[in-house]
Amino acid sequence: MGIAEQLPSASLGAPTSAPQGGGHQTVCVDTGRERYDILIGSGLLAEPQAWTGLPKASRAVVVSNETIAPLWAERLVQALRPHYPQVTVLNLPDGEAHKDWPALNSIFNHLLEHTADRKTMLFALGGGVVGDITGFAAGCYMRGVPFVQVPTTLLAQVDSSVGGKTAINHPLGKNMIGLFYQPKRVVCDLDTLNTLPQREFIAGLAEVIKYGPIADEGFLGWIEDHLDALLARDTGALTHAIRRSCEIKAEVVGQDEKEGGLRAILNFGHTFGHAIESGLGYGQWLHGEAVGCGMRMATDLSVRLGLVPPATLQRMHTLLVRAGLPVRAPDLGGDVYLDWMGRDKKAEAGDIRFVVLESMGRAVVRKAPEAVVRGVLTSAVQVSAAP
Amino acid sequence: MGIAEQLPSASLGAPTSAPQGGGHQTVCVDTGRERYDILIGSGLLAEPQAWTGLPKASRAVVVSNETIAPLWAERLVQALRPHYPQVTVLNLPDGEAHKDWPALNSIFNHLLEHTADRKTMLFALGGGVVGDITGFAAGCYMRGVPFVQVPTTLLAQVDSSVGGKTAINHPLGKNMIGLFYQPKRVVCDLDTLNTLPQREFIAGLAEVIKYGPIADEGFLGWIEDHLDALLARDTGALTHAIRRSCEIKAEVVGQDEKEGGLRAILNFGHTFGHAIESGLGYGQWLHGEAVGCGMRMATDLSVRLGLVPPATLQRMHTLLVRAGLPVRAPDLGGDVYLDWMGRDKKAEAGDIRFVVLESMGRAVVRKAPEAVVRGVLTSAVQVSAAP
Repeated sequence: MGIAEQLPSASLGAPTSAPQGGGHQTVCVDTGRERYDILIGSGLLAEPQAWTGLPKASRAVVVSNETIAPLWAERLVQALRPHYPQVTVLNLPDGEAHKDWPALNSIFNHLLEHTADRKTMLFALGGGVVGDITGFAAGCYMRGVPFVQVPTTLLAQVDSSVGGKTAINHPLGKNMIGLFYQPKRVVCDLDTLNTLPQREFIAGLAEVIKYGPIADEGFLGWIEDHLDALLARDTGALTHAIRRSCEIKAEVVGQDEKEGGLRAILNFGHTFGHAIESGLGYGQWLHGEAVGCGMRMATDLSVRLGLVPPATLQRMHTLLVRAGLPVRAPDLGGDVYLDWMGRDKKAEAGDIRFVVLESMGRAVVRKAPEAVVRGVLTSAVQVSAAP
Repeated sequence: MGIAEQLPSASLGAPTSAPQGGGHQTVCVDTGRERYDILIGSGLLAEPQAWTGLPKASRAVVVSNETIAPLWAERLVQALRPHYPQVTVLNLPDGEAHKDWPALNSIFNHLLEHTADRKTMLFALGGGVVGDITGFAAGCYMRGVPFVQVPTTLLAQVDSSVGGKTAINHPLGKNMIGLFYQPKRVVCDLDTLNTLPQREFIAGLAEVIKYGPIADEGFLGWIEDHLDALLARDTGALTHAIRRSCEIKAEVVGQDEKEGGLRAILNFGHTFGHAIESGLGYGQWLHGEAVGCGMRMATDLSVRLGLVPPATLQRMHTLLVRAGLPVRAPDLGGDVYLDWMGRDKKAEAGDIRFVVLESMGRAVVRKAPEAVVRGVLTSAVQVSAAP
């Protein structure tokens, strides 16, 4: 009996179809304690409607980074001016290597130097790193101020900006220090994806693909059918992919905000992926690339555990290769992988717990014998990238 | 109409009497979302009953400091051993000056070096600094692990360990970075107060006294009548004082966990007090000393605002002097005070908000004209310590 069976099939198992386009789409996240909207559409940064109805404050602070701010910060500042008498912009250094305490503290410095009060609104304009740090800062500053996610990467739009996970990295583990702290809104402007380098765009696709195997085989089929349109950043295809990803994530987070059980399925590919990222050093592989490779490894593990047939691995492999994601794991040595995976947040009393597939479209959390895991690791460094 | 009127008079306004002694007493905190007990009694550290029924885990970490650990850590570790296979002790540097990021990070280092998982239990053994840092660490480590407060100072037993406020200081403001994060239990062993230096004990009395003016004039009268017994650390008197303080705090926190309104009355004396602490540099005055002096200033402000008669100020002044608390404020200059108070977490859009008395036993939050506040500051540095 899999965890995914707790998901109502009506909302997650239904076949999906592309939207008709025009205007923006809304997905609601409801954790029981908090409720907020994800807005998805083109040109939202400049659309007044996207910024009304948020908590009032005398100050707003846009937290961004050196890469994103020159492209998009001015547009957001202009949109916020009618609502907040004072709007300032703070840029963090770009990249996962800077998802750390100094970056977090630079937000606190900025807020205190500007005597930001308890009602100050933070806006996280950027990718997952900006969103995770800013959300954490919002959760801690004066024990909590409101914030809005304005994700500018595909990965952040479909995954990290939704659901309230915030964190910084620690030298001894990724995302080890953080909070569950929900934003007041998520605004996904598709236009911001136009300036995204192709490597980052593809890395974001990994998290879109993820929702198929864990929760919706029909969505996986849709991705397979529309992969070329997605890679060409077709607006209609992207809108559908982002909306469906957010719907699934909202449904899972709504049932299990704090990862008591079900929510862990969203970490499909992440146990292996985090080990790749940590083992190579943050920033060598993009997070989505590590997750892509990790999903192949997790599917291989599912096959070796006898849960799914080898054809399931072949299907995942083919899709990942077509998407341009890495499928061969870096050769860190089995011990290094096991050491990093033992520090995973899902681990309990030293036992690593993996998200595996019980069938295509249904994920469960399981322990696995070390010999089987080592088999996956040995095989993964020898994988050919042929489809 | 004062905020304190939201408090049911049945539970807070009723006359109080000293307990009969024997066994331990229990006060329940119920925030609506979480519920936990405060246990108060002698010898609780070694009492098996105090440590049963907590969440199970393979590891417990006792966070303490260099001063407290040699006195009490071994007793606590012995009590925890039957429940947790692995128990380690981590000592932080002692003192408010070390309520900072390096101390917080040393807890994360310890947890990660010991591959502490998401179920690991933290026990904060010490005063307010240890409790605040440990609670914050528990709230952030892997996005939240359970913790227990084991306060060893009077101040921590009656105030900081109860209600889930956790924080570290920032160079630009006290307690600016933190969380509302509730413990699973609070265990107040009166025996630990026996080793408390008299200066710290008296500082703790300031927070006991506070509950009278803000919520229970009858309790203030009881304190006036039993001050000599309290100063002599009479067990019966202490038990009653701690229980009644915790009852009032639990009632307030239960109605307003996150300081949307009512809870701010617990900050009576703290706006002035924090300015004294920050202006002098952390550690010059003890927190309770600054709060004692701050309560006199807040009462003076209440008189100048025409809320209470001068006799109320005289009554507070006399009690504070009898208790051995400072009543003359350090001469930092009015501008310095106003600057620090403007950064207070209760401030909004630059307006300082003060907790003042509407009558003895009833506090409200108010803005005050700057000229009136300056009058309080000018007068406070000239106060005579004669009763």
